[in-house]
Amino acid sequence: MLNKVVIFGVGLIGGSFARSLRKAGAVREIVGVGRSATSMARAKELGIIDAIGVSGAAADGALPLADALHGADLVLLAAPVAQTEAILASIAPHLQAGTVVTDAGSTKSDVVASARRALGSKVAQFVPGHPIAGRETNGPDAAIDNLYVGKKVVLTALAENSETDVERVAAAWRACDAIIHRLTPEEHDKVFAAVSHLPHLLAYALVDDIARKPHADLLFQYAASGFRDFTRIAGSSPEMWRDISLANQPALLAELDAYMAQLTVLRAQLAANDGAGLEQVYSNAQHARHQWITAIEAAETPPSPDKAD
Amino acid sequence: MLNKVVIFGVGLIGGSFARSLRKAGAVREIVGVGRSATSMARAKELGIIDAIGVSGAAADGALPLADALHGADLVLLAAPVAQTEAILASIAPHLQAGTVVTDAGSTKSDVVASARRALGSKVAQFVPGHPIAGRETNGPDAAIDNLYVGKKVVLTALAENSETDVERVAAAWRACDAIIHRLTPEEHDKVFAAVSHLPHLLAYALVDDIARKPHADLLFQYAASGFRDFTRIAGSSPEMWRDISLANQPALLAELDAYMAQLTVLRAQLAANDGAGLEQVYSNAQHARHQWITAIEAAETPPSPDKAD
Repeated sequence: MLNKVVIFGVGLIGGSFARSLRKAGAVREIVGVGRSATSMARAKELGIIDAIGVSGAAADGALPLADALHGADLVLLAAPVAQTEAILASIAPHLQAGTVVTDAGSTKSDVVASARRALGSKVAQFVPGHPIAGRETNGPDAAIDNLYVGKKVVLTALAENSETDVERVAAAWRACDAIIHRLTPEEHDKVFAAVSHLPHLLAYALVDDIARKPHADLLFQYAASGFRDFTRIAGSSPEMWRDISLANQPALLAELDAYMAQLTVLRAQLAANDGAGLEQVYSNAQHARHQWITAIEAAETPPSPDKAD
Repeated sequence: MLNKVVIFGVGLIGGSFARSLRKAGAVREIVGVGRSATSMARAKELGIIDAIGVSGAAADGALPLADALHGADLVLLAAPVAQTEAILASIAPHLQAGTVVTDAGSTKSDVVASARRALGSKVAQFVPGHPIAGRETNGPDAAIDNLYVGKKVVLTALAENSETDVERVAAAWRACDAIIHRLTPEEHDKVFAAVSHLPHLLAYALVDDIARKPHADLLFQYAASGFRDFTRIAGSSPEMWRDISLANQPALLAELDAYMAQLTVLRAQLAANDGAGLEQVYSNAQHARHQWITAIEAAETPPSPDKAD
């Protein structure tokens, strides 16, 4: 049981963490901190948080940061990643020895660098994390108590972290029914550059490419369900993905270069009418994707009692 | 009312055309022609076709091609596009003056070139077409009577076609509740290179790229719903997309080059930490996609009686 949890940013990610912990009976008190007084008031009205904390001067019954953090077992940063360093710097002077801090950012190497700058030797109390959960809606009203059920949460522990502190973060996410994975920050960023950040960049690039053509209206008229699925991620927040692209720049550049090299090979095969070469790439992709989907579906489907033996 | 329709390839596309025409009461007799005797027998058993025709020697009650085509109002080619020229050549000697031929291929310039070679002056009777409908399943059992409801069918009429012949094809598709669009073969191929063929190539390339990495298993483990949607089209038939890529090679190369130029610009912005440049591309894409989805949804949703005035 956590006595007190402080959440910076009570939107879909932070608010759902709060609701899930509460549903599991895993927390006594939740304090929310955010830049928008309206959002915080709404989060309290919805019962997601018990009290509101503020950076800077306290007002209207909101707690100063020192009081908000006093006696906290766990602090979750779930505000936009661009605010991470400033939030950590505001926390640093008030951070007590018994408090563990974690985050929910989509990139990790840059967050670790920010944490080292902002927290100094207290970085040992910071356990970086990344819950892999959808982000198409936001705000306190989007928060639900089952967002993390069966979802992966990647923790990228630092050499300075104690196993007790890492376990406190892991246990909180497990109380939300999430599944804990552990990677280094560098592994994390390489993996997500390949399977998430690059696809976003590619989808944005394609839609922008088409939208800028003089006959864009004609093109969009004939775009069908395949195009719709391929470009769904280009409907995501441009600001958030700008920040993620820049935050994970080295790994994303490496993945983009590998992909452009692959396109150069495919272009040469196409130009040479090399059907066998194209088919090899297409077949390998179809086969790999089929195996992946089969593995996902097997993991999602509990074994049927009829078939068990 | 069509007296007799002959369909080459009675799978999802051809079989659904047959079922839809029959449901509309728009046809008296349907003859199916295909390379697989088993599929043809199944199509007849399912009531999709009334009789079976064969190229070459007739056997087991199947009609020789001359008889199958005798008195036909309309012939639809719905076999794999690689067979188009051979089928047209087999039809040519038996093609009567009153018969109109159309096809369902995903590319049009190459089909037109095949038709000119195979049919000679009879190419005037060939009206190229492309129904925009899903192809994830196949075979006669996949055929349904509402596949084309509200779907677009692009006709790319030739200068040689009479308006009467074009109208016969258009009327048959309208009987299937499809919506007729008209483009030139060249326009068609440019449009579909951009909104369909290029996205397929890009999705295949990404999955192949990831699958070939030494840590592919780790990567696939963290691929989530965004990746799943982005790569859905990489689950399509590699043979079919190899054929489409080659058939539409010039237009696809042009689109691929434009896209690679776009990626080169984005790569430079990323390398220079140009957040404003990245955000402009991402925002333009998100905005254009939002407008497109809004337009689609408005077209799909009938006006509410409450809101009409």
